[in-house]
Amino acid sequence: MVNAVGRDIPEKIILETEKPVFEGAYKNSGHDVKKISSGLRSAKVKKGQLPESKLVASIDEVIDRTGLKDGMTVSFHHHMRNGDYVVNTVMEAIARKGLKDIHVAASGLFKCHEPLVPLIRDGVITKITLSTISPGPLAKAITNGYLKHPAVFMSHGGRPRAIESGELHIDVAFIAAPCCDAEGNMNGAYGKSACGVLSYAYADAEYADQVVAVTDNLVSFPASPVEISQEKVDYVVEVEAIGDPEGISFGPTKPTEDSVNLKIAETTAQFLDEAGYIRDGMSMQTGAGGTSIAVAAAVGNIMRARNVKGSFASGGITSYFVDMLKEGLFRGLLDVQCFDSAAIESYRDNPKHMAMSASQYANPNTKGALVNLLDIMILGATEMDIDFNLNVVTGSNGVILSSSGGNNDCAAGAKIAVVVTNLVKRDMCILRDNVTTVVTPGETVDVLVTEYGIAINPLRTDLLEKLKRSKLPIMTIHELKAIGESKAAKVMNPEFTDKVVAVVEYRDGTIIDVVRKPVQEF
Amino acid sequence: MVNAVGRDIPEKIILETEKPVFEGAYKNSGHDVKKISSGLRSAKVKKGQLPESKLVASIDEVIDRTGLKDGMTVSFHHHMRNGDYVVNTVMEAIARKGLKDIHVAASGLFKCHEPLVPLIRDGVITKITLSTISPGPLAKAITNGYLKHPAVFMSHGGRPRAIESGELHIDVAFIAAPCCDAEGNMNGAYGKSACGVLSYAYADAEYADQVVAVTDNLVSFPASPVEISQEKVDYVVEVEAIGDPEGISFGPTKPTEDSVNLKIAETTAQFLDEAGYIRDGMSMQTGAGGTSIAVAAAVGNIMRARNVKGSFASGGITSYFVDMLKEGLFRGLLDVQCFDSAAIESYRDNPKHMAMSASQYANPNTKGALVNLLDIMILGATEMDIDFNLNVVTGSNGVILSSSGGNNDCAAGAKIAVVVTNLVKRDMCILRDNVTTVVTPGETVDVLVTEYGIAINPLRTDLLEKLKRSKLPIMTIHELKAIGESKAAKVMNPEFTDKVVAVVEYRDGTIIDVVRKPVQEF
Repeated sequence: MVNAVGRDIPEKIILETEKPVFEGAYKNSGHDVKKISSGLRSAKVKKGQLPESKLVASIDEVIDRTGLKDGMTVSFHHHMRNGDYVVNTVMEAIARKGLKDIHVAASGLFKCHEPLVPLIRDGVITKITLSTISPGPLAKAITNGYLKHPAVFMSHGGRPRAIESGELHIDVAFIAAPCCDAEGNMNGAYGKSACGVLSYAYADAEYADQVVAVTDNLVSFPASPVEISQEKVDYVVEVEAIGDPEGISFGPTKPTEDSVNLKIAETTAQFLDEAGYIRDGMSMQTGAGGTSIAVAAAVGNIMRARNVKGSFASGGITSYFVDMLKEGLFRGLLDVQCFDSAAIESYRDNPKHMAMSASQYANPNTKGALVNLLDIMILGATEMDIDFNLNVVTGSNGVILSSSGGNNDCAAGAKIAVVVTNLVKRDMCILRDNVTTVVTPGETVDVLVTEYGIAINPLRTDLLEKLKRSKLPIMTIHELKAIGESKAAKVMNPEFTDKVVAVVEYRDGTIIDVVRKPVQEF
Repeated sequence: MVNAVGRDIPEKIILETEKPVFEGAYKNSGHDVKKISSGLRSAKVKKGQLPESKLVASIDEVIDRTGLKDGMTVSFHHHMRNGDYVVNTVMEAIARKGLKDIHVAASGLFKCHEPLVPLIRDGVITKITLSTISPGPLAKAITNGYLKHPAVFMSHGGRPRAIESGELHIDVAFIAAPCCDAEGNMNGAYGKSACGVLSYAYADAEYADQVVAVTDNLVSFPASPVEISQEKVDYVVEVEAIGDPEGISFGPTKPTEDSVNLKIAETTAQFLDEAGYIRDGMSMQTGAGGTSIAVAAAVGNIMRARNVKGSFASGGITSYFVDMLKEGLFRGLLDVQCFDSAAIESYRDNPKHMAMSASQYANPNTKGALVNLLDIMILGATEMDIDFNLNVVTGSNGVILSSSGGNNDCAAGAKIAVVVTNLVKRDMCILRDNVTTVVTPGETVDVLVTEYGIAINPLRTDLLEKLKRSKLPIMTIHELKAIGESKAAKVMNPEFTDKVVAVVEYRDGTIIDVVRKPVQEF
């Protein structure tokens, strides 16, 4: 069935997943929603006696205690990012027990999770649901179709929506806890493996049948602050280390030093200013990429110059937003993931730097997520098409490079969603007739800013009107594509098999696209 | 049907409420539990546009917007205590609209809610569910049977249990918010009407179909800290004042100065010490009554003298526990209700003074509530029987004076639950063959300390053994009762009609007793 962004979703996938296909970005907003929740076992109490200890000696033992069985779903959060040890430790223990057909529902997986690849090969892991993944062996294994069932890529807001609706039922959640007491009160702010907020784990703690805290910093009761509270936690396991904090600030979290990218960032800031979005009370989110951070820096310069005071910045937080908060450019930071140690310290020490749940951040099935209040969203993309549809999942060769993250959440909510990218990357034009995979529908993407020019989505007649006398290099998407194609030496049109290796869900749970296995093995 | 504490629960009530009768304090611990949750309407989103404002001009208008109808349930929290304006304002507006048959599900109601009495008379309010109430006209109106349906008295932990299980479905929650932004992010820590934590409202915010924040302190987005978050809130209404903060420290929140009560407090502390409960890592909760606080002070003196460092103190928090935290006698305070301005300031400024939800505090259907970790609980009671069953709901004349609060929650969880009271009050012996109303089952109550002696529950053979050489005036409950009766001039045995005016639920949702209308009108 062809969906609203023109992607042909195989009937087999529709039947297997029981998901409807994508019908439009705002089709399911303003609807009645039913949240459901899972079962639990109430604590056993006896007069005059301490409750049974939640402390369990090892990961091996806790897996036994949970009664984990073949076919069940285990979940993880990704705030330890590329330094995480918990996913590998738990999954290897599960493998040693001979369990098969496990569904790993992680909010994110990284390069460091390469040890999952042999477990996929052995049938221990047969399904993966995630919202973010970094390029590497695991992403390649998914691309190559080693999983028995297609992976499911959800947005950061789509994940708690799926958990709350019962679509993603978690049997056992394993939560890496940098600071935890013996009853399971925990936070991410303190300890040798401090990672800042634990936002993506809140839904798991709330809805999983069983919740296991895994900590390398068991503190006296009560842990303070209590970010996830004891009445949601079944077991606490102390381990030597839950991760390597050095792995948290993985990838670029500094402004670019590349002159072309710096120019793109400057142009973006100028565009936003001319479009009227840099004003008192403004809000903003960028990713952690070098060009995105450079946009934040350039916007900050304009704010300073004109004494503009913003409202909030959100998302994954880097030191650049921490500095902007300190400087008073924003009144608050709302954080779902700390990208570096400055962000972790700021969250710990500055009450204006606040954790938010993934639902508060981006869940479309709520009474109003934060993304709906965003003015400016700076997006990345691996490809874009002439309808402004975005791909952030696959490279032009078809290999999985990343996942939805908050891309389509923020694009849907933001008043202006701007894609900031080189038009020509690796000698290829990122603008195409059709992107390899659609993650973010074009109707939610407003502007493309590149080194060769700017294109405004024709749906945004207000922006076209406002910028019509601008000296910025504004052109149609077709003109920009023609330039890109003239500069690019390569076109890649890989061949794909029929095998679906991943289902890409839009934030509302509909299928916006599928990833097919390329003919070439990676 | 006669339940496990010997109370005859009318079949009619069992049928009407669809609740089982009480079978024992720990009968329903260690069981499988299903949490359910209510519906909501997802926020409507449109590209490039701000979401529809949640701000509504008045209480009248917001009632219209919610579509509130005859027979629906509205909820309130009681952290403004005897200074609250919100319950009266909302209910009077509902009355003006001609709505009838409204169920008021408040976590607590006070003297200041006298204006509800005429609304009960008029059939606007026909049912009330609450966990705490203070003596006064409203309590008398319930006693007199003016409500069409019996009131339901739940414990503080039983209330979130009932909400989460769907037994108490809330159509519209009205949450008094001392600090709130236009999206509904709120806290109780800041503002002219700061009340401290908003703990009892968390379950309402999570599970009510619609949530209205009522604030007299609308702050710029984002409010900080975010105690209840925006994605749970439908509407925000600004009013002139949500309450009079002077009404928060209502009733005794200082140590008693009465010499008899001071002696009871000293005896209690000595008993606890001899029983081995004053030791490193200990935890403790007392109510806000003068004798209870004097016990805390006396225990504190022993802790200081022996350099004992406790773990936590919990419950409604007064300045006395704030001082003990500052002094290092406890590592943390876990707070469901601030009883005075010192507690409010401490919660605001001291990270070791933490809010907890009513579920984290006392919900029996969780993976482990805080009450299960309590060592020492100091209880109050209006009456006690020879099986150690407690009444905190009615006076010996049958009039409603109070409600369960956390009494049976803490008794069930605490390692030692000590009733501290005068044996003779208002010339009557508080020890009786049968109490007027059972709220807390005797199997969870360990000790009674009075001015004339101490009685240990025979079930606690360990305590009897440990204290057998004590010089403290330990005797049987029968001996103590005989002394009390010899000192008391009055015995009150009021006559009751068959009309049930309130159903008293045990924390697990079973019926532990009913309150019948006395023949005498109050």
